[in-house]
Amino acid sequence: MTKVVILGAGNVAFHLFRAFQHTKEIDVVQVYNHRPEKLSDFTETNTTTSLSELKKAQIYIFSLKDDAIAEVAKKLKDSRSLYLHTSGGLPITVLSKFENFGVFYPLQTFSTKRKVEFRKIPLCLESSSEENLQELKKLGASISENLYEINSEQRRALHAAAVFVNNFTNHLYHLGAEICEKNQVPFNILQPLIAETAAKIKELSPEQAQTGPALRNDKKTIQTHLKLLNQDQTEVYKLLTQSITKLHGKEL
Amino acid sequence: MTKVVILGAGNVAFHLFRAFQHTKEIDVVQVYNHRPEKLSDFTETNTTTSLSELKKAQIYIFSLKDDAIAEVAKKLKDSRSLYLHTSGGLPITVLSKFENFGVFYPLQTFSTKRKVEFRKIPLCLESSSEENLQELKKLGASISENLYEINSEQRRALHAAAVFVNNFTNHLYHLGAEICEKNQVPFNILQPLIAETAAKIKELSPEQAQTGPALRNDKKTIQTHLKLLNQDQTEVYKLLTQSITKLHGKEL
Repeated sequence: MTKVVILGAGNVAFHLFRAFQHTKEIDVVQVYNHRPEKLSDFTETNTTTSLSELKKAQIYIFSLKDDAIAEVAKKLKDSRSLYLHTSGGLPITVLSKFENFGVFYPLQTFSTKRKVEFRKIPLCLESSSEENLQELKKLGASISENLYEINSEQRRALHAAAVFVNNFTNHLYHLGAEICEKNQVPFNILQPLIAETAAKIKELSPEQAQTGPALRNDKKTIQTHLKLLNQDQTEVYKLLTQSITKLHGKEL
Repeated sequence: MTKVVILGAGNVAFHLFRAFQHTKEIDVVQVYNHRPEKLSDFTETNTTTSLSELKKAQIYIFSLKDDAIAEVAKKLKDSRSLYLHTSGGLPITVLSKFENFGVFYPLQTFSTKRKVEFRKIPLCLESSSEENLQELKKLGASISENLYEINSEQRRALHAAAVFVNNFTNHLYHLGAEICEKNQVPFNILQPLIAETAAKIKELSPEQAQTGPALRNDKKTIQTHLKLLNQDQTEVYKLLTQSITKLHGKEL
């Protein structure tokens, strides 16, 4: 079994740990976090709050906040093991002080309370050498069917795209929920629409799937909507309407 | 069997027609559209391009563009049947020239080519009288499990909320796809994230489900992202980041 130490105890660390627990190939021998209260979800393995007590392992996974990754890496001595981070936003080079290093970025949104099917999660892999890449792929294949080789520049772009389709989309859900609440309509009426919007683009490109008043240049409906929105909703409505109109070549 | 005439041959008319075909209670005796080429998807029933040839029916459903609904209604004589429209944006009163009238609004995004499970689609019902409401509910229950009584003001708000969670969300998917394309990353890497973003809010409110650099006030990541976006993407990124920050009480 490959021995792994996870540095970090947040959502990504938590779900990685659970996923590795179900494999025969990987043994998480320790989880590190500097705050002891964060380690209560990891009682099935050894935990430590001290970097000087880190166990030996073939792979160390930095699953910490972006700023903490470089900071903690600085404090560790190289052991010829493989050192990986799980950040979408950081280049591979933040770990270049080690001989063997790479990136192991699971492209998904994680909440501690919500189960995820890890086998379907895309893992974006990048490595300092061909040999390390093989080890990374073995590690990835133990928990996911979807492995991609993605370099640091592509990963940065992917991370930005993820902000659009996840963070910003979720915020649009919130603005929709605000409008519902104000007008005493249950937000869950919108659930089938939200699900279908996401499912539709498996078959159609988002450009082909576009519908609505902005696409139709339906000024009357747009005016009706603007009348019932607050200032923040209005700004978002106007800008996205404009952006759709620009893309689809119809001037308002 | 209740005889129904559908006026209109667009996506909503098409999916309504298919749904009614699978019921024992409803018989669509005719579909009207003024453009004959639009009627080719309705060969299983009678079709007409002339309002003077409309058949007798207990229920007439106006499933036309918003502007066409009032226009066509003007040309029809009242027959004491029930007259309904399927528009999210129009008040019930556009059909008030008839004695019995109402709204039958399916809250979903329809494409002709994509099958939908109609039984899960929320139907928003509004009626000119209690008696008509009973008939509307019977009609609705024949094809859907999710019936809601929604008045015109609520429906208008719901329609605006739908623009946020459907039209605008889909456009964010497009912006994400643009970023992927420019950086030669396949857009489908983002599919599991998109699906999970939509699924998550069945358990958590969108406000609770929010994650990402805007929420964390992670200026470094935000700056990294802004550097790789084009002008249109930048405007959307900045405004939505601002809107998230405002909501969650952290100033950038």
